[in-house]
Amino acid sequence: MACSCISFGGVARSCQARYCGCVTDAESELIERAREALGPHGVITDHADIEPWVSDWRGRVHGASPAILAPASTEEVVAIVKLAAERRVPLVPQGGNTGMAAGATPSADGSQLLISMRRMNRIRSISAEGRLAVAEAGVVLETLHEAAHDIGMRFPLTLGSRGSCTVGGLTSTNAGGTQVLKFGTMRALVAGVEAVLPDGSVHSGLTGLKKDNRGYSLDQLLIGAEGTLGIVTAVALKLVPAVAARIVAWVGVESPARALDLLRFLEARTSTIEGFELVPEDSLQLVLKHVPGTRSPLNDDHQWHVLIEATTTDSGFDIAGEIERLLGDALQQGLIGDAVLAANEAQAEAFWKIRDTISEAERAEGQTLAHDISVAVHEMPRFLVEASAEVERRFPGVIASGFGHLGDGNIHFHVRAAGHAAPDWYESEGAKITQFVDDLVTHAGGSISAEHGIGQLKLAEFGRLAPPGRVHALRAIKNALDPLGIMNPGKLVP
Amino acid sequence: MACSCISFGGVARSCQARYCGCVTDAESELIERAREALGPHGVITDHADIEPWVSDWRGRVHGASPAILAPASTEEVVAIVKLAAERRVPLVPQGGNTGMAAGATPSADGSQLLISMRRMNRIRSISAEGRLAVAEAGVVLETLHEAAHDIGMRFPLTLGSRGSCTVGGLTSTNAGGTQVLKFGTMRALVAGVEAVLPDGSVHSGLTGLKKDNRGYSLDQLLIGAEGTLGIVTAVALKLVPAVAARIVAWVGVESPARALDLLRFLEARTSTIEGFELVPEDSLQLVLKHVPGTRSPLNDDHQWHVLIEATTTDSGFDIAGEIERLLGDALQQGLIGDAVLAANEAQAEAFWKIRDTISEAERAEGQTLAHDISVAVHEMPRFLVEASAEVERRFPGVIASGFGHLGDGNIHFHVRAAGHAAPDWYESEGAKITQFVDDLVTHAGGSISAEHGIGQLKLAEFGRLAPPGRVHALRAIKNALDPLGIMNPGKLVP
Repeated sequence: MACSCISFGGVARSCQARYCGCVTDAESELIERAREALGPHGVITDHADIEPWVSDWRGRVHGASPAILAPASTEEVVAIVKLAAERRVPLVPQGGNTGMAAGATPSADGSQLLISMRRMNRIRSISAEGRLAVAEAGVVLETLHEAAHDIGMRFPLTLGSRGSCTVGGLTSTNAGGTQVLKFGTMRALVAGVEAVLPDGSVHSGLTGLKKDNRGYSLDQLLIGAEGTLGIVTAVALKLVPAVAARIVAWVGVESPARALDLLRFLEARTSTIEGFELVPEDSLQLVLKHVPGTRSPLNDDHQWHVLIEATTTDSGFDIAGEIERLLGDALQQGLIGDAVLAANEAQAEAFWKIRDTISEAERAEGQTLAHDISVAVHEMPRFLVEASAEVERRFPGVIASGFGHLGDGNIHFHVRAAGHAAPDWYESEGAKITQFVDDLVTHAGGSISAEHGIGQLKLAEFGRLAPPGRVHALRAIKNALDPLGIMNPGKLVP
Repeated sequence: MACSCISFGGVARSCQARYCGCVTDAESELIERAREALGPHGVITDHADIEPWVSDWRGRVHGASPAILAPASTEEVVAIVKLAAERRVPLVPQGGNTGMAAGATPSADGSQLLISMRRMNRIRSISAEGRLAVAEAGVVLETLHEAAHDIGMRFPLTLGSRGSCTVGGLTSTNAGGTQVLKFGTMRALVAGVEAVLPDGSVHSGLTGLKKDNRGYSLDQLLIGAEGTLGIVTAVALKLVPAVAARIVAWVGVESPARALDLLRFLEARTSTIEGFELVPEDSLQLVLKHVPGTRSPLNDDHQWHVLIEATTTDSGFDIAGEIERLLGDALQQGLIGDAVLAANEAQAEAFWKIRDTISEAERAEGQTLAHDISVAVHEMPRFLVEASAEVERRFPGVIASGFGHLGDGNIHFHVRAAGHAAPDWYESEGAKITQFVDDLVTHAGGSISAEHGIGQLKLAEFGRLAPPGRVHALRAIKNALDPLGIMNPGKLVP
């Protein structure tokens, strides 16, 4: 079907701001030839089947795509990339569509083709002996967790969307989560990447070498590249021994600085700590107010709280005894105000539920602006306190508060509208407040995107704040590897 | 001093194969202007002061340079790079000149200028609270070890040349060493890089963020780039808590497969293992023969040996008891033949001395070809046994043997000449044998350079064996960031 509203020579649609549903000749030909290469299941053109995937899951960015191509193998991805290069049609790879920065959402003019990786969902191999799983891009994180568990191993990275996010997306966004403190982000857990590069060649890095110094690390370049340098088709992932026992504790502290002191105190005495999440009293109260079935873990009030998760792989080791002893010492030294260990798995889950429902409780309370920021770990306590005060001073009535991965220097810095705020507060004030926060972060030497990536949503701010030399280098790399600009254009690179 | 033997328009010397000592007009002008920018201590032109640095330390590759520029600050490196870009003079950055692949050795025609980073040797900051040290490129590894120790912390990477290698070189070669099993290579330990890029801009990544998803990781691209994308001027390095106690054990096992079984057995039960070095009986016997003061740790003979280092940061933890118990269990299960724990530090050092003097003992025995190779960890036991047999079958009389970092899948695979070998065996047979070994490694999906890099010495083999798509991508990145080709040309990129 050729476009009836205007004759297209190339890809860009100028007929109207919103996608009219038309298909250019180039797209039409690509889709036709993709149907030959991928078979009937590989090409989705029904509007109702496309619609759920062309907006980001939070509904912030609405895109369009004349079709979804769903390859079932690396060879089919190669075929798509070669067709796209030939016809100059940009591709937007997508996994579970759970990203926070609209990095997998096509442009609104319908000029970009969505590539769904969800049919590539085989775990090609998994080995306890080799401590490796090779999973295709479309494997859902929870599926990988289960597969590792079945062989007595563990893939330690986890996060809220584990039931739908895919390993390809996790790799392409260098995802983090709650166990980064001990195991690192995807950058540390990916042992190798298989990807189809923009020239249609396949980068095969799946042999799982722990050491390999043969030139620039293309694996590391592809991790966090948000699909702008190629389409990740499979990854080799490091497995660790399964957990024999875990302890979850809830601790009351007087300040973020004290929380960090506690972390250092523990880390100097045990290597079992893998989760260390900061929760302000304000967030706890919101959860207790809005999330049914939650209760405060401690009897007394504390200004700040820490959720600690400690694990051991040694079934003979008394981890509960160790953590209890160490928290006892910390209490005696005045580092903490109070502490309680979860008595059983149900209580452990209840502690985690408080942490995991903070965003949900905030949304129930009113309009909230989220910022995924980081500064150097030891700077975060001071930054958090000072930046909250500065934001509240500059924008009277708002409530600024931060929670999350203190041990990584990564806080989800949220700003809530005042009770009397206009219904369009988010749209009218959001950009101003975010720029103010981003300026504070940048001034502190931090990152305006700690773990969520740049995608589309942070592209303007990244471009505004990045040093020109850095932007120049990113563009040079992008143009060198993707000279035709077919790989997820409009994302990541300002 | 202009060249008297021929008139130079550009950089390349065609007058003679070996450097004649002449200086091109471009170099002469660059050196003169560098003297203005760097002061008298920053420019070395005396032949006797240059000579020790223009060959690699093993004497395999002999280069030449009309001068050594020795900047004392990042600003001075910027000045040099801008001059070099203007005059199209290639630069060769060098740290301690301890590399294994001649990556810091200039070309023999004298057309490349050696840049010594040794004057940039300040530790800019070091913090136990922040768990970070920011060290300039010329800081010697041992100096960093001591500085970390002084504040109760530790920089865990270590290797034989720690008394002279520098953190800039370690970063640029993604160095490994003996503690990679637990702490990873430099890629895992560098928290950020400051580098002068080929366009004279400064990439400043020293804020030590643990999470930062703002575009492609230039830090990761510069790590292991051997100075071909820019000159690393400083690095932020992760510190870990100091060791409270360590245990060194020597274990006899019947095969590399059993050694790996032992590692998996231990790792599933303790997180204290940080060194796990495989030593064949043949290597042990050579050390006992050639290195004075060494003795076998175990009474009985074993075909293979493992040196284990376990550490704890918890002074209250009985690590000796744990390792003794676990090795006892392993003995009972028939995993190992025998084991002994070092009774004190002197004995621990004696065990390590055996491991560290294998290469020295081999050299004393005769001509040896070294190959720094890796395959997937669980493949290494089989590969090692089979490849040794294949090499000995194909080249009758030679002895093939591998030792080293079994837990990383990284073995130093050495081939010794037969007793009756000709004095020129290394030159006449070396390339043939190395190609044979490299083919075996490549066929097994492994790396012909696990931790030593490509430099000049492995460039031809890398070019011969790398997939064309990979070579294309490396060249594209190199050309994009260094279009004038002034950054350590002739290294790393085939």
